[in-house]
Amino acid sequence: MCTGVSYTTKDHYFGRNLDLEFSYHETVAVTPRNFPFEFRKTEALPRHHAIVGIATISDGYPLYYDAVNERGLGMAGLNFPENADYKPEAAGTTNVTPFEFIPWVLGRFETVDQVVAALNDVTLVDISFSEEFPLSPLHWIIADKNRSVTVESVKEGLRVYDNPFGVLTNNPTFDIQTFRLNDYMHLSTYPPENHFSKDIAFDTYSRGMGAIGLPGDLSSASRFAKAVFTRMNSVAGDSESESISQFFHILGSVAQQRGCVHVGGDDKFEITIYSSCCNTDTGVYYYTTYENSQITGVDMHKEDLDSSEVVDYPLVKGQRLSMQN
Amino acid sequence: MCTGVSYTTKDHYFGRNLDLEFSYHETVAVTPRNFPFEFRKTEALPRHHAIVGIATISDGYPLYYDAVNERGLGMAGLNFPENADYKPEAAGTTNVTPFEFIPWVLGRFETVDQVVAALNDVTLVDISFSEEFPLSPLHWIIADKNRSVTVESVKEGLRVYDNPFGVLTNNPTFDIQTFRLNDYMHLSTYPPENHFSKDIAFDTYSRGMGAIGLPGDLSSASRFAKAVFTRMNSVAGDSESESISQFFHILGSVAQQRGCVHVGGDDKFEITIYSSCCNTDTGVYYYTTYENSQITGVDMHKEDLDSSEVVDYPLVKGQRLSMQN
Amino acid sequence: MCTGVSYTTKDHYFGRNLDLEFSYHETVAVTPRNFPFEFRKTEALPRHHAIVGIATISDGYPLYYDAVNERGLGMAGLNFPENADYKPEAAGTTNVTPFEFIPWVLGRFETVDQVVAALNDVTLVDISFSEEFPLSPLHWIIADKNRSVTVESVKEGLRVYDNPFGVLTNNPTFDIQTFRLNDYMHLSTYPPENHFSKDIAFDTYSRGMGAIGLPGDLSSASRFAKAVFTRMNSVAGDSESESISQFFHILGSVAQQRGCVHVGGDDKFEITIYSSCCNTDTGVYYYTTYENSQITGVDMHKEDLDSSEVVDYPLVKGQRLSMQN
Amino acid sequence: MCTGVSYTTKDHYFGRNLDLEFSYHETVAVTPRNFPFEFRKTEALPRHHAIVGIATISDGYPLYYDAVNERGLGMAGLNFPENADYKPEAAGTTNVTPFEFIPWVLGRFETVDQVVAALNDVTLVDISFSEEFPLSPLHWIIADKNRSVTVESVKEGLRVYDNPFGVLTNNPTFDIQTFRLNDYMHLSTYPPENHFSKDIAFDTYSRGMGAIGLPGDLSSASRFAKAVFTRMNSVAGDSESESISQFFHILGSVAQQRGCVHVGGDDKFEITIYSSCCNTDTGVYYYTTYENSQITGVDMHKEDLDSSEVVDYPLVKGQRLSMQN
Repeated sequence: MCTGVSYTTKDHYFGRNLDLEFSYHETVAVTPRNFPFEFRKTEALPRHHAIVGIATISDGYPLYYDAVNERGLGMAGLNFPENADYKPEAAGTTNVTPFEFIPWVLGRFETVDQVVAALNDVTLVDISFSEEFPLSPLHWIIADKNRSVTVESVKEGLRVYDNPFGVLTNNPTFDIQTFRLNDYMHLSTYPPENHFSKDIAFDTYSRGMGAIGLPGDLSSASRFAKAVFTRMNSVAGDSESESISQFFHILGSVAQQRGCVHVGGDDKFEITIYSSCCNTDTGVYYYTTYENSQITGVDMHKEDLDSSEVVDYPLVKGQRLSMQN
Repeated sequence: MCTGVSYTTKDHYFGRNLDLEFSYHETVAVTPRNFPFEFRKTEALPRHHAIVGIATISDGYPLYYDAVNERGLGMAGLNFPENADYKPEAAGTTNVTPFEFIPWVLGRFETVDQVVAALNDVTLVDISFSEEFPLSPLHWIIADKNRSVTVESVKEGLRVYDNPFGVLTNNPTFDIQTFRLNDYMHLSTYPPENHFSKDIAFDTYSRGMGAIGLPGDLSSASRFAKAVFTRMNSVAGDSESESISQFFHILGSVAQQRGCVHVGGDDKFEITIYSSCCNTDTGVYYYTTYENSQITGVDMHKEDLDSSEVVDYPLVKGQRLSMQN
Repeated sequence: MCTGVSYTTKDHYFGRNLDLEFSYHETVAVTPRNFPFEFRKTEALPRHHAIVGIATISDGYPLYYDAVNERGLGMAGLNFPENADYKPEAAGTTNVTPFEFIPWVLGRFETVDQVVAALNDVTLVDISFSEEFPLSPLHWIIADKNRSVTVESVKEGLRVYDNPFGVLTNNPTFDIQTFRLNDYMHLSTYPPENHFSKDIAFDTYSRGMGAIGLPGDLSSASRFAKAVFTRMNSVAGDSESESISQFFHILGSVAQQRGCVHVGGDDKFEITIYSSCCNTDTGVYYYTTYENSQITGVDMHKEDLDSSEVVDYPLVKGQRLSMQN
Repeated sequence: MCTGVSYTTKDHYFGRNLDLEFSYHETVAVTPRNFPFEFRKTEALPRHHAIVGIATISDGYPLYYDAVNERGLGMAGLNFPENADYKPEAAGTTNVTPFEFIPWVLGRFETVDQVVAALNDVTLVDISFSEEFPLSPLHWIIADKNRSVTVESVKEGLRVYDNPFGVLTNNPTFDIQTFRLNDYMHLSTYPPENHFSKDIAFDTYSRGMGAIGLPGDLSSASRFAKAVFTRMNSVAGDSESESISQFFHILGSVAQQRGCVHVGGDDKFEITIYSSCCNTDTGVYYYTTYENSQITGVDMHKEDLDSSEVVDYPLVKGQRLSMQN
């Protein structure tokens, strides 16, 4: 399904894998400050923070999958089937639709702390963008350089969880995902030690054995454990090249290979359509696609951020080789 | 440590991850037909098949890690510590040193069948290249379009195993690696079915749950299971772009991220130094490095294959970005 | 910690393992109908259903660990540390203390349906029996021949869960325990089938391989999965001997062996102090102890159930051998 | 299938679970010193050590499943399908049939060291007892107070492995079983420690979590790991009661419950037919059966050990309850 990650070296990086069996004509979309954001049930934002991210654009409106604003705040929506529960409009609260949620947050706020305070008052209302684009069941990871949270609208209401792991996948609900990590607390990046019996001589026959027990299938709970382990133990230099390399390696640890996850029918497979990594300090949005492993970038600051028109770049999907001879 | 893979779509592809905590100045080296291969204990090959692969070149001699010849035969050496057992020179057999093994095989043969027949008579003798380059404990995967085998020189002698998985990692010995796969036979790319109890209603809460039980740590036995599952279930189109994308995704499923495997000391980590994929039909050798996810290629047929000089290209290691704006 | 089980052949059987590192002088206690049950905050029961179970008797009051009444209703309290949350007295509700909960339920009701209806109105209040016997953090399994439920008083309030598994262990909360079973849905009592790849020939080298993935450690979540698997797949004849044999085998599958679970200090171990199985149709309470594997029984109907005095039998703890020569 | 165990407190205890889907009229059989042991291909033993164990007696000959001699040496045969490979008669060696192997060893030797020395010269020959009793594919555990070994006759010949675990189950071969233990070296009877990340706070929500990763299914490889863990960490007092209690608890940790292992057809199940534990110092043979959890004993020294007639006692199979009222 999907994996979102927040990671900081010298700069802060935010991105995700989008895992699906089809593509919606995603583009890298830069929404400048004066693009008029209308909202169905709450006041419009005629001027707001500029945003860069991947979106499907419908009738000129950027339906963002994940994005970052010019102040360093990132946000991504990830699939949350059977658990996401959107509500009827609730008087006395700020009613935001799920498809508006990313622009509403990234347009207004600079930090996770501000978002969390504002969410006390928010209802995610059950209103679709259009017949063609009904609501997806989603939950969100929102992160800045210092803090990550998970936001879930479930039967019991809107829940905001601290996310010290900087990782989000899909089901189950985040409290259960977090609880399951307890069963992995013994995993280590160091060689295993013998705690079984001092009367047995064991053979550390391979490097990496300290993490035996870490799951490797592509279900959302297993990807969560694997991505948290990789992300929490990641070591990277501070340079842009080292940082984004490491970020894409973290995402690569839970990427989905064509053929490994059947979805309905014999020849439909979920794959990692794209992987993204935005430097939230510089506003450069990087991505790779399933078939193009070269990192492509879009720099939001190279656009006119005071304009009112969304600028978008189609994803480069063909393999971009470089021949040495 | 390492993972080798052989995979066929329309063409045949052969490659590997090299997982280490250091780099030996590897280069992509093309050895043309008339480069004089001397061998320590067996007859020289003044003329032989041309070879492309990654090697450290010492005194003009290409010490190949993995390579492919112009007839479509590929071969890679992978770490095999504590198990590799090289022998004293044995009269009446063909005595080949481990560091000569790749040139000796790729220089002479066109198919795995030919290699297997020849190995009846081979002793891997315990002679180092030099003081600076002592022998590594290795075992090998040798593959053409139709067949893969694993070759191991162990205490009991030289063993050749059919390798229907087209995958090799490291320890334990290949017979044990193969045996362990039995414990994973139930894993599936399809959603799991309830075999637990018809009186319980289960929830398939995520895609990918059919493979729950597949390991995700980076030890050699776990990488073997994960890579075999990914490789055996891979689906790819026939084009060069689709094929090599899929190949690198297979390797990516068992790549090593910096920080996840400590080796001696707090700040030394094993990482995937490079990943390679050679189209053995066309002789184009592709690779990525830890920090450069763009695929770089070297086409052996663009070199003068009748010359007598090794041509080599240093690995492109810096991140090669492509900006869209 | 503990495991409770409800199981039906021709008759209904209810029992548990008590896993602790010490013993509180448990006895098999029969409470007849006219023993006056006083309650701290709700009306007394001068006359009630007779009860048999294991209890510590303090000041003449039977503090039941698990018990069954003469109408076939069984109830057991199991450790629930950090999760159990008892409440202040709540006006307008029936305030029952946790130590009174078993007598209050078993004294009044005949079926789980009746209990569930009554629980709408119940508060489990934070009042200890005495300074010597503070409240334990518990949750409960309540079962009759047709239905089992789990009752948990947690921060959010009193929760009643249907328990179609007839099994309760300890942490985490029952909703999470139940959710985790989804990851085991593929487990089978039949030999495994190859879903990995039709191009690999696997070897079913042992019977029982269909359940590979079932955990075998003694943590509460692992015992839950193992006990549910064993209980749901159990096959037993209808006779009393076959039924209770099978019941003790189910409990044996998750019993704790001395030495396997350290608790504080090097030489304190949690073990299965006793295992019990009550035929709720006949009122015969059977048990074994860690050191006495012979099944000992107490038949409640052999006591004067119209009296007002608790009758108790100390547990037979020494190994009762039978020599054949 | 089966599990054999050797365990020492003050005395030495040796026994096993016999796991099958049927029963062969097993009896506890005492073979006195002057019972004439004829062998098919090697010299007879007219006088030998006395033996006690469980056997099927055919034509007066005790076909032992497991047994102990009066000198403290124990031996058990366990199922080893597809791996056991018995040989043609080999001139110049001592040719013993598998069905004679237990009497031949226990009749002659006092220590494992003596047995190991003698096995240099032994061939296990492919000769059946009778048409009715063809050879079973077996391997053996042989143990005295100080040493255990595993003996396997496989394609490559007779292999004798030190068995420091004092545990034997079934497939795969013992070298592979032993190797797999390496993957469990981190398991602990103590609570788990956080080696995952110092930036995450974990919750040790249950006792016993240090052994998460220990398998709980009933396949032979999983039973081996579980039994070794339980056996190596067992703690027991020195008394006979404590010792045999602990021994039966070790066996109980890998016992097979009816319904959990289907074998051919819907209603045939492998179960633990009997569990045994012989005090090899005193010659008292204890056992329980699937339906009788009371320990029954036979004391070899209560028989006339200088006679020439096998004495046997049928297994007590009905549940032997003890009522307290």
